[in-house]
Amino acid sequence: MSTTITIFNLVRDGLERVEQKMRETPRLVGGGERVPPHPVLNDALEYLVSTGGKRLRPALTLLVSHIFPAEPERVVSLAAAIELLHTATLVHDDLIDGALLRRGHTTLNATWTPAATVLTGDYFFARAADLAAQTKSMQVIRRFSHTLMVICSGEIKQLFDKRAGLNRQGYYDRIYAKTAALFAAATESAAVLGNAPELAVAALREYGEQLGMAFQIVDDVLDFVGEESNMGKPVGGDLQSGLITLPTLWFLEQHQDHELLAKILDNGHQDDASVQEAVNIIRQSGAIEATLDEARQFIRRSQAALEMLSPGVYRDALWELSDFVVERNR
Amino acid sequence: MSTTITIFNLVRDGLERVEQKMRETPRLVGGGERVPPHPVLNDALEYLVSTGGKRLRPALTLLVSHIFPAEPERVVSLAAAIELLHTATLVHDDLIDGALLRRGHTTLNATWTPAATVLTGDYFFARAADLAAQTKSMQVIRRFSHTLMVICSGEIKQLFDKRAGLNRQGYYDRIYAKTAALFAAATESAAVLGNAPELAVAALREYGEQLGMAFQIVDDVLDFVGEESNMGKPVGGDLQSGLITLPTLWFLEQHQDHELLAKILDNGHQDDASVQEAVNIIRQSGAIEATLDEARQFIRRSQAALEMLSPGVYRDALWELSDFVVERNR
Repeated sequence: MSTTITIFNLVRDGLERVEQKMRETPRLVGGGERVPPHPVLNDALEYLVSTGGKRLRPALTLLVSHIFPAEPERVVSLAAAIELLHTATLVHDDLIDGALLRRGHTTLNATWTPAATVLTGDYFFARAADLAAQTKSMQVIRRFSHTLMVICSGEIKQLFDKRAGLNRQGYYDRIYAKTAALFAAATESAAVLGNAPELAVAALREYGEQLGMAFQIVDDVLDFVGEESNMGKPVGGDLQSGLITLPTLWFLEQHQDHELLAKILDNGHQDDASVQEAVNIIRQSGAIEATLDEARQFIRRSQAALEMLSPGVYRDALWELSDFVVERNR
Repeated sequence: MSTTITIFNLVRDGLERVEQKMRETPRLVGGGERVPPHPVLNDALEYLVSTGGKRLRPALTLLVSHIFPAEPERVVSLAAAIELLHTATLVHDDLIDGALLRRGHTTLNATWTPAATVLTGDYFFARAADLAAQTKSMQVIRRFSHTLMVICSGEIKQLFDKRAGLNRQGYYDRIYAKTAALFAAATESAAVLGNAPELAVAALREYGEQLGMAFQIVDDVLDFVGEESNMGKPVGGDLQSGLITLPTLWFLEQHQDHELLAKILDNGHQDDASVQEAVNIIRQSGAIEATLDEARQFIRRSQAALEMLSPGVYRDALWELSDFVVERNR
């Protein structure tokens, strides 16, 4: 825990400026003053920024920028763009999933109509794109739009390809699209802005990607073992909505025709008692330990990618951040 | 009609390349190959492009680019970005409105779940942003994200501010955000790409904005007088959904306490017979003629903006396109 505090202390000032940037209302060009951002959009943004998460993605961007420095204003814009893109995708995800809580706070869709929630997400996408443009790097801007394409395509795959997650490759592709792609964009783009040598850009991209994979695997584990009070959402939610994550996948590899699991996954939403029973069965099967072992392999790969960089406090911080990702409990 | 054919002939080749560009699957950078665009996304795009409208917005971009030429690939990217942004907003709009038909074809949300429709719209936004980035002009890229912000903010205003459209200014601001902002972006951005002098950029922006205002007013008139077979959607739909457009506004200025109108607008959705009766009353009141007169004033302003440009076949085409917008019947 003290390690994490140390790491985040390294970028505390930067993160403050990132949050400030996320909140900043852009002065719209060309007639935009006729229809300034509606107050409810600013309120929604303020709410989402103030109830935001750990800021892991912008922290990654800032740490990399300490290794390969660029103009501070562009770095802050990049980090804010990454976090706001993340925020925008969550707004639409929560609507789609009908989630009422995130990080213990009510979601937008819990109180707003679907129409207002869709449009607010769209507005955040536009604002995130505008922040990405403020990096003034074509490579970063295109990486940004490509990352959003990957995220959307991954979610569409999950909707349309029934049981797409029923094997490792399907699962890995899904969590790459869902999480690792944006982590990779956060680290790689910072290296690009800092004019890092090509090999360092590739290494930092690899670091972000492997870290993102581990992060999502741990997130999926926490859906089984987390405390509801820590998670801010019910435990077993993935299983209840029919989503197969790595612990379930591991369990099914050992028990191919498990009756209760088959019933839950075939029929989608199930009663709380059945889901709780399945969660307990999976927890007691060794699936959690096996899954965390896999996450640690991704962490080791992320750390290995750092070895080509010169040693230093910020490289060390990235290294330790990787360890933190597996040990965190929410 | 023959005038329109002549105008569109001037940009026919360009429009073909624009549609091709809209359909083109981008080769995603950095890990994108792991999650290529899902086939249903390409199918949806193909469907929407092949059932697309008149391509007025990209035609505007192309015509301006003939006056102020730029690298053809960048011009085509810009025109495709503008049209795809328009397409993406329609995908979410139709979902929000529960519209089942557009231009006589079923909407995505008529056959897909809300979740799939939201994500497909998001994917199109990302792809449109990527096309905008391919113009390689920072000014164009930022105009693009700002325009999307204006569009979203206008729609949010419509949702949250009850009766926001109950006066001229509210109505004009709404149609500016809904339509004129993107028309202005289409003409202004083309001028920017073509390195037009600042005054010409401003004039072409003004042309696009005024034309867009006229276009939306005529669209709102067509909701009263159009044939359902031409419109591809039911007549009187705006009124039925409680949306106050200029013909209704004009009518209410003359008949402040009209009982039937008040009933329809207060209660939102009403029975078809009442709406049809209200449509007939408004049609017979002179509101349509008065509204079209206003549209013609915007057209005259759009044409006046062209006067500072050197005479020529493409300037004439823009001029005539303005007239076409008011005379069109769908």
